Amino acid sequence: MTSDSRRVVIVGASAAGMRCASRLARLRPDWTVTVVERRRVFSYAACGLPYVLSGDVDDADALRRTSDGALRDAAFFASVKGVTVLTGRSATEVDGGARSLTLARPEGELEHLGWDDLVLATGASPRRLPAQPRHPRVRSFHVVEDLEPLHAGLRRGEITRVVIVGAGLVGCELSEAFRALWGVEVTLLEAASGPLPGVADAEIGAVIAATLRRNGVRLRTGAAVEAIAAFDDRVEVAAGGERCTADLAIVAVGVTPEVALAHSAGVALGITGAIAVDDRLATNVPHIWAAGDCIEVRRLPDGRPLHLPLGSLANRQGRVLADVLAGRDDRFPGAVGAVAAKVFDLNVAATGLTRTRAEAEGIAARSVWVTAHDRAHYWPEAAEIAIHLVYEAGSRRVLGVQAVGAGEVAKRVDVATAYIARGATVTELAGLEHAYAPPFAPAIDPLAAAAFAAENQEDGLEARPPDEPFTGARVLDVRHPGERTKHPLPEATAMPLEELRAALPLPGRDRWLAVCERGARSAEAARLVRSSGGSASYLGGGMQLRAMMGLESER
Amino acid sequence: MTSDSRRVVIVGASAAGMRCASRLARLRPDWTVTVVERRRVFSYAACGLPYVLSGDVDDADALRRTSDGALRDAAFFASVKGVTVLTGRSATEVDGGARSLTLARPEGELEHLGWDDLVLATGASPRRLPAQPRHPRVRSFHVVEDLEPLHAGLRRGEITRVVIVGAGLVGCELSEAFRALWGVEVTLLEAASGPLPGVADAEIGAVIAATLRRNGVRLRTGAAVEAIAAFDDRVEVAAGGERCTADLAIVAVGVTPEVALAHSAGVALGITGAIAVDDRLATNVPHIWAAGDCIEVRRLPDGRPLHLPLGSLANRQGRVLADVLAGRDDRFPGAVGAVAAKVFDLNVAATGLTRTRAEAEGIAARSVWVTAHDRAHYWPEAAEIAIHLVYEAGSRRVLGVQAVGAGEVAKRVDVATAYIARGATVTELAGLEHAYAPPFAPAIDPLAAAAFAAENQEDGLEARPPDEPFTGARVLDVRHPGERTKHPLPEATAMPLEELRAALPLPGRDRWLAVCERGARSAEAARLVRSSGGSASYLGGGMQLRAMMGLESER
Repeated sequence: MTSDSRRVVIVGASAAGMRCASRLARLRPDWTVTVVERRRVFSYAACGLPYVLSGDVDDADALRRTSDGALRDAAFFASVKGVTVLTGRSATEVDGGARSLTLARPEGELEHLGWDDLVLATGASPRRLPAQPRHPRVRSFHVVEDLEPLHAGLRRGEITRVVIVGAGLVGCELSEAFRALWGVEVTLLEAASGPLPGVADAEIGAVIAATLRRNGVRLRTGAAVEAIAAFDDRVEVAAGGERCTADLAIVAVGVTPEVALAHSAGVALGITGAIAVDDRLATNVPHIWAAGDCIEVRRLPDGRPLHLPLGSLANRQGRVLADVLAGRDDRFPGAVGAVAAKVFDLNVAATGLTRTRAEAEGIAARSVWVTAHDRAHYWPEAAEIAIHLVYEAGSRRVLGVQAVGAGEVAKRVDVATAYIARGATVTELAGLEHAYAPPFAPAIDPLAAAAFAAENQEDGLEARPPDEPFTGARVLDVRHPGERTKHPLPEATAMPLEELRAALPLPGRDRWLAVCERGARSAEAARLVRSSGGSASYLGGGMQLRAMMGLESER
Repeated sequence: MTSDSRRVVIVGASAAGMRCASRLARLRPDWTVTVVERRRVFSYAACGLPYVLSGDVDDADALRRTSDGALRDAAFFASVKGVTVLTGRSATEVDGGARSLTLARPEGELEHLGWDDLVLATGASPRRLPAQPRHPRVRSFHVVEDLEPLHAGLRRGEITRVVIVGAGLVGCELSEAFRALWGVEVTLLEAASGPLPGVADAEIGAVIAATLRRNGVRLRTGAAVEAIAAFDDRVEVAAGGERCTADLAIVAVGVTPEVALAHSAGVALGITGAIAVDDRLATNVPHIWAAGDCIEVRRLPDGRPLHLPLGSLANRQGRVLADVLAGRDDRFPGAVGAVAAKVFDLNVAATGLTRTRAEAEGIAARSVWVTAHDRAHYWPEAAEIAIHLVYEAGSRRVLGVQAVGAGEVAKRVDVATAYIARGATVTELAGLEHAYAPPFAPAIDPLAAAAFAAENQEDGLEARPPDEPFTGARVLDVRHPGERTKHPLPEATAMPLEELRAALPLPGRDRWLAVCERGARSAEAARLVRSSGGSASYLGGGMQLRAMMGLESER
């Protein structure tokens, strides 16, 4: 440890800023680490906010506490971490030459804080729609201060109808919060063709949409907002040719990086509009660094610039930056973009590129999807999950994985993320090793099963293309009679897989779409039909089947 | 697809054999694929057998069914998979020159089966102790036929006391089965110093041992069996200076590969005594191949030969071998050795090397362990897990990970396995990206937290060495008063972390061992004590603390 004391000033006391400050104060106890924060309440888990509204978490205070129950306030950081936090100050200007930061107090008086190194951890703020009026009935949901007006209105019964604009992660989580705990009438508007665009392709989006609708959410897709009009007693949102009246509109259409301070310092932005940094999180201005939701990161493995405002990444960046400032060789190489969300009883997780996104970037993407049990199928708590695997044709490089279901999906997406980050192929993913025991996983993990399906598809056994109309082929239902009774397919030709081999070749020249409950038998059936000279593809399982046929709501 | 039809004969109808047969019949529908099996019941999930005994799974038949409910019998494989299974035949001899396999029926008559390619999937059988008598009261637990005598004896009340020899995966699972459903008095004998030797080091073993004891299992470690004497009315097992009397002894001390047939064919064995194969699963004899529990595999990443009889690997090998036989370029590169088990309410998973094993191999291994929540700590269903991370000093290469707890551990071990397989360092593991949402994971995944602790240890902040006596240092208890009341440490100096900084330097020249509930505060405390000139290490959390102090049973 050197003794040359330095002054490090960090702007923004969220995940990136506080993680960087705390670690730096540990690594360099002789340095002065000061964090400037414009709000009074800081260092809370913002990702937990929807769960306070939903009642899953009792109290917003829980989000500010450590796992040991200590409140992360300024006194805590001073006594435990050795970090000074100056709250209620807005950082308004950087003088890079004089290495000074101008702070404005709410009353308007200015302070100047000298620094040797400056860290911009200014975060992001909710994106506003062009049509968005500034009115108490038109809100965003981003910070802890956004909770109280909602809670108050809900408790007083003044909020019984809500329009949520944007079916992204926050929009879906809020839909559940409003419905499940408060019984509010929720209309969820999404400009794209399905929920969680950018996270889920149509195959998985259909399952999420079915879950939202089954739980009473009025989901409207392809519904871009045309106008929002706020009145004393209501708000009206026009979207997709429909006009919704509600007590409240919440606009949840993503965030934009907070870059005003960076701009004042001459810090360059990247093509996404977020602060450009290298893998040591240095900006173009010497001794000015940046981390968290305000920066642009490199997408792994291809290095494309991306704005990826995720709390988990902000934490990692804060740690890396502390190491770098302390003189260590640490790097933030980028991120694949793994995300997760709970949508009612459906677990959702995804990583990497959707097929839609890959195609938009000119990548020759293909995909498969499978339905499988998350544990040994005979284990009492086994639950079905569906995995959608996106890969590049030819190279077979894994591009992305999406998973949904009542079972464990987030950690399977983590495994996929480790493969995608290093540019692995579906063949490598097919060889993944997993800790197998019936209470935790089947002998063949669903992720490997999806990779097998992708390999089979490259061998010519095509999964049904998702943009093919469901009526484009004759449906060959290879399920057992009991399964058919539970979820009937009236138009289908019923023939259990066990009987198919003896019945081949099937008469006629139809193109067949084989379906079953999990995609394994239907794949087998399609292969049998093809090997007997027929034409067939298959559907990846009952979850998609029911979602795509709109049968899910009957469950 | 070529039209030159080949005859492939596979000996053994378990995971490797049937997976190979089914896929090969798919890839090469014009070939003849025949499986020879000496038992009548085959192709069941043997890993599920303990859960039939425990009542978690209603019926052993469930283990033979597909997830769609079809029974995997010979008729199923014939009609659905196009595979012929000849049951009730023992393969007794291979004539490599004539390419013929001799089969013996139970009545003694011999058959000869010609082959172009022969696959040995002969599996493994329970290892016997030198002292082990052949007697109905001394049993193994390996195949479905082992269930009925136990069920019958338990139902009739003839089995009320059981001695299980070997606290490996099967021994621990059986302990739970006998205790939880049947209330049998279980004595579990283990020659090593803790349960699951080879899977868990002392830190994790202590937690597993505490769980077994809390659930009423009489665990005796360091208790090598000296003698087993079986009588008409009882069995007596002498071990570790103690003599246990019981109605039944179950010997669960691992398995040995079945290699007699391989021997008759001139197939070479590896140093582990299992069949030696290359990464295409070819033996030294042309056109004789092997897969499953009878083969030796390469350990990843270092290539050391290993006998790793796991159902998940057998499945993968069967698939790879089908590809190879069909003329494809597929490989089985080896395995890290990921395993999982449920021990009462404790989830256990591990991968790679234990520190004990690494040291025995001459590797300079170090380790750290942390206790953390498996989800955001404020999420209502968050559960504590402990992770023990073993790595090589200097290179910082990750050698192994062990994890236990009520929360999700198996999939975290899967993520670790992906890193270990490619020789990643703790620094790379510290940079792991995970799908973060409060219901699924904390913002910093426990696996990353363990990697952070390892990096900190390499920076000089040592976790307590596990072989250091607990009384070797003064205990500095930095927990809050409420935590101390719940789990008191009578001998400790109590000082909440918040107060420590102001109290430094601590008086005296003692070496301090800082303890807390999750290892984060104690690490911080140790660092503070050291930075003030004192000497301190820390303990990785309350789960180990209580287990090592034997307090777990008081919960």
